[in-house]
Amino acid sequence: MNATIINIGDELLIGQVINTNASVISQMLTSKGFDVKETFTIGDNAEEIRMYLEHCTERSDIVIITGGLGPTKDDITKKTLCDFFGSELYENEKALCNIKRIFEKRGYELTETNRLQAWVPRCCTMLNNTLGTAPGMWFEKNEKVIVSLPGVPFEMVNLMEAEVLPRLQKHFNSGFIINKNIIIQGIGESFLSDMIEHWELSLPKSIRLAYLPQAGMVKLRLTARGNDKAKLEQEIAEATKTLYPIVSQYIAGEDAETLPEIVAQTMKKAGKTLASAESCTGGSISAKLTQLAGASEYFNGGVTAYSNNLKEKLLGVSPNTLATYGAVSEETVREMVTGIREKAAADYAVATTGIAGPSGGTAEKPVGTIWIAVASEKQIVTKLLRFGDRRAQNIERTCNAVFSELIKLVRAENAEA
Amino acid sequence: MNATIINIGDELLIGQVINTNASVISQMLTSKGFDVKETFTIGDNAEEIRMYLEHCTERSDIVIITGGLGPTKDDITKKTLCDFFGSELYENEKALCNIKRIFEKRGYELTETNRLQAWVPRCCTMLNNTLGTAPGMWFEKNEKVIVSLPGVPFEMVNLMEAEVLPRLQKHFNSGFIINKNIIIQGIGESFLSDMIEHWELSLPKSIRLAYLPQAGMVKLRLTARGNDKAKLEQEIAEATKTLYPIVSQYIAGEDAETLPEIVAQTMKKAGKTLASAESCTGGSISAKLTQLAGASEYFNGGVTAYSNNLKEKLLGVSPNTLATYGAVSEETVREMVTGIREKAAADYAVATTGIAGPSGGTAEKPVGTIWIAVASEKQIVTKLLRFGDRRAQNIERTCNAVFSELIKLVRAENAEA
Repeated sequence: MNATIINIGDELLIGQVINTNASVISQMLTSKGFDVKETFTIGDNAEEIRMYLEHCTERSDIVIITGGLGPTKDDITKKTLCDFFGSELYENEKALCNIKRIFEKRGYELTETNRLQAWVPRCCTMLNNTLGTAPGMWFEKNEKVIVSLPGVPFEMVNLMEAEVLPRLQKHFNSGFIINKNIIIQGIGESFLSDMIEHWELSLPKSIRLAYLPQAGMVKLRLTARGNDKAKLEQEIAEATKTLYPIVSQYIAGEDAETLPEIVAQTMKKAGKTLASAESCTGGSISAKLTQLAGASEYFNGGVTAYSNNLKEKLLGVSPNTLATYGAVSEETVREMVTGIREKAAADYAVATTGIAGPSGGTAEKPVGTIWIAVASEKQIVTKLLRFGDRRAQNIERTCNAVFSELIKLVRAENAEA
Repeated sequence: MNATIINIGDELLIGQVINTNASVISQMLTSKGFDVKETFTIGDNAEEIRMYLEHCTERSDIVIITGGLGPTKDDITKKTLCDFFGSELYENEKALCNIKRIFEKRGYELTETNRLQAWVPRCCTMLNNTLGTAPGMWFEKNEKVIVSLPGVPFEMVNLMEAEVLPRLQKHFNSGFIINKNIIIQGIGESFLSDMIEHWELSLPKSIRLAYLPQAGMVKLRLTARGNDKAKLEQEIAEATKTLYPIVSQYIAGEDAETLPEIVAQTMKKAGKTLASAESCTGGSISAKLTQLAGASEYFNGGVTAYSNNLKEKLLGVSPNTLATYGAVSEETVREMVTGIREKAAADYAVATTGIAGPSGGTAEKPVGTIWIAVASEKQIVTKLLRFGDRRAQNIERTCNAVFSELIKLVRAENAEA
């Protein structure tokens, strides 16, 4: 089954906001076995919306539309859809209830304009948007499905999960889809592909394999599709079991999307705590870990020691070390990691110091020279990274390298992780 | 002049990577006075590429294409473009030199496959990609311009700035465009619009005004367009001058894109230093500030005090305060901000403590209850924020609130900022 996504909104065409909806919907549809053929971003323009609705319903089985459902006059998606399907608008009672509930909760008075959001075309199935005032709408025409969703990302995601995906699976009788993600680390995509070629060829027909390279890792996604759920689960389990011995030393985790998720899984499984001392990454390690709910279960906290003064005062780095070897040195990163592990009374600690760029380098230590360290009670692992001169990328890659080294060390020292 | 953007790549359609190129190119084109009509994301499929090339060259004056220029066999954009223009490929000497230079720098040997990247259609102008191996290509057909760029974001941005935008401006003789951004804070878009309505109506015809609301602020963008550069500059200067008295207390900065940029401008102008103590924001304040080059000029560093232990040990928060009022309290945030200002020997400090969610709330302190503080030598400003239960949004909004309060305080205490 093919799908097309249409994102509507003038604000998307001036680049004011990054359009994340197209990618997020693509990922959700793909994970349920629907292929996304193309995505369009167009303005709040009735003629264009109509034209692309025609175009997409001809080419795809499913059309997902986002945006243009607000109560103001520039938002014309609903009216245009209503005309397209030759329907008329009516006040949907359930939608109105939902809008009233939301206004009450926020302590605002319901205006006439907001009440209009409860009006939907008669020919659609209203999809109740519990997180916002613009309802979703499900249309069917010539065996095609057209869905209209609000453009606010979290409202859209909630409606996709709660309403759209289950209905699509039922409508197209698409059977079961089981996904299994295995995160591979420390080996490039092409080497990995050579290493598991044999295994890949032995997979049953019902299982598809995808390589999804991401910053610092490769996600292998196994997708099983069919009507016998128990059988699919068994096939996935067996495929996973036979894969493990082949790449065991590179497996960083399962069913995670990012390295910080794997760090969280690993630390929690090991029942150990963590602290960070960051210079060139400037708090990004800490920020990435604490973006995930439940971080306080294992993360004690950390120090962003941007100045030498803070390195000395909060981490106990010796002024002598800083003077002799410089802030960007193996000696300093060792003292940073030791210092924070002790101060934070943590089982493990990580530290970074380097020249993130774009300026500040010297002949001996050019921009992109970065020392990282990972420490446990028993040992300290240090590593010298040499990146280029783009600041954002240097910070990102340093974080990934730290997460990788940490996962490795915690795994090595804790059988249960 | 209208433009359309086509992003090519199967990886975009499975949602593996967020497509930021469409938004970034839209923003760049808009800032130079070109209107983006629509954007398309399609797969690595020759037939589709051809079809949308036809479609877009009919509808737009400019078509910008990204992606599908890699050396592997799935990347078919170049071949398809060559066929579309009825041209033939040849080895471009300058492109080859560039590729050789990059391989030499990275210490890799040049393979036959990589050498193929120097081949471009005869009918195009090769745009030299100094940051990567896939050259950009500039085509002209029936007064339309079609540009093909690599999909790697930083390579694309560099080519847009260095090659594409100047050529577009020259080709379409589009005159001068002068943009002026004024950042407004602490007032909503609709109130602002009422407040400056009179001023807006008095603007000369050559100046266009756009409201660009963003997290925690509204960016007002004045765009002047015409052929007399000096006159445009004068008009922009006058418009800005007359705007200031009307909204003076809400102006946070000029010619910046984000709040952290304004923080950096303000701190540097004031010649003061800053430190941070973060609990619920988990290092995000620190990470956002240090993403910008030159942060070390004013940012001493900070502490992510996720555990009570670290709040006591590194920030000097009294165990008594924590026991009596709890970690999420005005008393604690005051001691945090005082503690970090002293430890980091900084002129200013900020602190956050709260329940980011989605769980961890109580009846008295529900999820989204967050205390922030900003301190100088003379005073401490605290503020209680009450947000919802979405973690990522709570962190983001807390950071913005902290940046706003900090900018206000530094401005109030330093005439020159």
